[in-house]
Amino acid sequence: MTADALRPANLEEPRQLGEAEKRDLVAALRAILPGDALLIDDEALRPYECDGLAAYRRKPLLVALPETVEQVQEILRTCAARDVPVVARGAGTGLSGGAFPLSNGVLLVMARFNKILEIDADNRVAQVQPGVRNLAITEAAVPLGLYYAPDPSSQIACSIGGNVAENAGGVHCLKYGLTVHNIQQVKMVTMDGELVTIGAQSLDAPGFDLLALVTGSEGMLGVIVEVTVKLLPKPERAQALLAAFSTVEQAGDAVAAIIASGVIPAGLEMMDNPAIRAAEDFVKAGYPVEAEAILLCEIDGTDAEVSEDIMRVRELLLAQGATEVRTAKDEAERLRFWAGRKAAFPAVGRISPDYYCMDGTIPRKNLGAVLRHINELSDEFGLKVANVFHAGDGNLHPLILYDSATPGELDKAEDLGGRILELCVEYGGTVTGEHGVGIEKLNQMCSQFDAAELTQFHAVKAAFDPAGLLNPGKAVPTLHRCAEFGAMHVHHGQLPHPELPRF
Amino acid sequence: MTADALRPANLEEPRQLGEAEKRDLVAALRAILPGDALLIDDEALRPYECDGLAAYRRKPLLVALPETVEQVQEILRTCAARDVPVVARGAGTGLSGGAFPLSNGVLLVMARFNKILEIDADNRVAQVQPGVRNLAITEAAVPLGLYYAPDPSSQIACSIGGNVAENAGGVHCLKYGLTVHNIQQVKMVTMDGELVTIGAQSLDAPGFDLLALVTGSEGMLGVIVEVTVKLLPKPERAQALLAAFSTVEQAGDAVAAIIASGVIPAGLEMMDNPAIRAAEDFVKAGYPVEAEAILLCEIDGTDAEVSEDIMRVRELLLAQGATEVRTAKDEAERLRFWAGRKAAFPAVGRISPDYYCMDGTIPRKNLGAVLRHINELSDEFGLKVANVFHAGDGNLHPLILYDSATPGELDKAEDLGGRILELCVEYGGTVTGEHGVGIEKLNQMCSQFDAAELTQFHAVKAAFDPAGLLNPGKAVPTLHRCAEFGAMHVHHGQLPHPELPRF
Repeated sequence: MTADALRPANLEEPRQLGEAEKRDLVAALRAILPGDALLIDDEALRPYECDGLAAYRRKPLLVALPETVEQVQEILRTCAARDVPVVARGAGTGLSGGAFPLSNGVLLVMARFNKILEIDADNRVAQVQPGVRNLAITEAAVPLGLYYAPDPSSQIACSIGGNVAENAGGVHCLKYGLTVHNIQQVKMVTMDGELVTIGAQSLDAPGFDLLALVTGSEGMLGVIVEVTVKLLPKPERAQALLAAFSTVEQAGDAVAAIIASGVIPAGLEMMDNPAIRAAEDFVKAGYPVEAEAILLCEIDGTDAEVSEDIMRVRELLLAQGATEVRTAKDEAERLRFWAGRKAAFPAVGRISPDYYCMDGTIPRKNLGAVLRHINELSDEFGLKVANVFHAGDGNLHPLILYDSATPGELDKAEDLGGRILELCVEYGGTVTGEHGVGIEKLNQMCSQFDAAELTQFHAVKAAFDPAGLLNPGKAVPTLHRCAEFGAMHVHHGQLPHPELPRF
Repeated sequence: MTADALRPANLEEPRQLGEAEKRDLVAALRAILPGDALLIDDEALRPYECDGLAAYRRKPLLVALPETVEQVQEILRTCAARDVPVVARGAGTGLSGGAFPLSNGVLLVMARFNKILEIDADNRVAQVQPGVRNLAITEAAVPLGLYYAPDPSSQIACSIGGNVAENAGGVHCLKYGLTVHNIQQVKMVTMDGELVTIGAQSLDAPGFDLLALVTGSEGMLGVIVEVTVKLLPKPERAQALLAAFSTVEQAGDAVAAIIASGVIPAGLEMMDNPAIRAAEDFVKAGYPVEAEAILLCEIDGTDAEVSEDIMRVRELLLAQGATEVRTAKDEAERLRFWAGRKAAFPAVGRISPDYYCMDGTIPRKNLGAVLRHINELSDEFGLKVANVFHAGDGNLHPLILYDSATPGELDKAEDLGGRILELCVEYGGTVTGEHGVGIEKLNQMCSQFDAAELTQFHAVKAAFDPAGLLNPGKAVPTLHRCAEFGAMHVHHGQLPHPELPRF
């Protein structure tokens, strides 16, 4: 998306603080934080106007940069006492606006929580602060033969606190799970300043599973101040296959066949023709540019396991009608296979002024049908769509190409994006695989859930933050908003029950 | 435990319904249910006095046996309107008293929800009603080459609804995860009669992770009326090793070494000398009765993978000082290795009038130290302890041998059990691995969590069931109870904060 577009549309502007209220808040925060840890000037606030959903921008009231748990507790108590909302932010790489700031609230930037506290090789865990970058954990663990498995595309930059807040995924999630499957314990401060420890250092924790509840809760239940992640031993060997197909349906069916065979690839990615061409033009990965779709399949494990599974997948791909199957002959070729995939998003950025990256999931067996349907929608809207995605997980990433300089095209792109997500729901999927709901997909949540379910979400939120001060307006739409959205779209014929409480 | 012991001790007797209230409730339920689906007579209620924690018994007010979702909704609405508590019950095999009935409440027995609704081989899921037995799912899936992985010891009898409520585990959880990792979606009725669908049919669900929250919530958040479980392809091959050690510490260290090597066994179980002898006397599995500990290690996967890993584990076991390592030479010998393990609990039942099965977890690296400490406690209390457990998960199952005919011995066994669980917490573990808290471990929860954490649990409970009518008094102790428990035991010096609200 363009860096300059400003999209406050459909976001309610919150009640603003009076000058006296603001002065009082600043004075209280100055008593907690050192001088350089409180940003108030316009110029200093500018970098914090948006996260990775850069089309939406709004200046926060102020930015706090705490570096101790006690400071976080004091800041939250100070804000709670004054009814001032708080948005926590990690590295700001999120794609759904989860860390979009409030003009009347404090943006709590966790960047200074950047220490790896302990790596325990015996128990294969690392205790880290939330501002530690995802890749930095693996870099610190590699000398011990270990690594942290979830690998979102932004792993060089994104921080583990944000990964937990959004339940981040990545190429390797097919085999190794999402963030929720790769963490053991979280220390978190609730809006009233209490420090709570959730999860456990061993197998399973008694009581309700608050660890899973907090993972993916998009900063609405508490502020994460420490994370214990699980580490895995580095596999002995990794090997990759590249298969070309003359239709996307065949490629989709091949994905289903591989998974049905019982092989669990470390990664199983698909790219369609527009994505293949863009990537090939950009990085010369040697992709077959005539193919309608390619699959990249990586197998890792012990030497014998990899040899056997590569053979088996190769046979399956050919049986499913692949026009060509290449096995990387050495590590250099394996890395070249992946170079095209990893560069696919910027590559699409080179062929279109702007693109809008969607994120939805579908049951794997519907891959072919959904991709065909997306092509029809693309024709209907007159906007090209390139597909690059985690096929093995059924996690789509359609990239909608548009030009924000053409009046109305951003709106059209957002409408098409909304239609694609509703399509995912119709095929039994969900409106987000790994990017979260944030502010981006509030309307689509109304398609995904009914009033009883949304009411239950709001009740859970209230159990942690009764005053609704922590990241308000994100992730879970109000029933009121869904009623309005339902009045605009056909909402499966179901309007929320008018008597239910509004949150 | 003895079948006849009656242990209402330390359970508060709830407010009883008046005769008129009871008549009104029965009349309302008769309008919902057919005649044979409502049990009121003493004789008919007797089988429902306890679950697997048979030392605790209490007659429910009445038993309802619904067979449709609408009936469940109506029953819950009827009870909610009358302020009558409800306890849901699956097969009643739970070991911590999670389905212990209330003398003033309805016991909602889900046995008639016993249909497998669909097996979808393409998406590798099965939709089943909650009363379907765990093993019945695998039996139905095997013709399609699939199975359901979690395998609690009670899998012949226990039902999937109860498995979800308790987040059941089993031997294969080390590789394949707990129940929470093997389900995709749950349909559940809340105490106010709303039907909600949580989770999704694809990768990840947006919104808070209520599926994980409900899994293991011990029937306190809603009544499960349908479960979609994940199915796995049956591995090509399984092979087992048996290793003998002359100290339990060496066996514990070997477990840590195997896991550290990166091999993930399908099962990694440990038995100590009292358990080995009891099992060998009972089923003649060919165990080395002089060994202080044995490890059973199963590897599954493709043929090549199994061959390679078995070799590697064998070498590791010898390097860790195993006095003997046997590889099962055929399927018959593999099954014989497991026969002793599977018969270990009844085998211990043959050598002692009663035993009390504990369930706690510890970080794997502390296995040796904790087992030594348990031996010291065993001497101190004068009660024998046999250990049979999921070593790979760090999930202990000490069996405390006692005789309920000896006055005071049950109390002593319970005290020793409590001490063992507190020991687990001290070593960084938890008070339950897979059996749940129920009524059994309420006091130990006071050691595990502080007041802020327990308060958060109660707030989550209230978000689903504000009146506290669903399985009240289970799983999460009141702060009041913890304060009393804290006054009796040394509770890490921390008493709950007196100003916090009491739930």
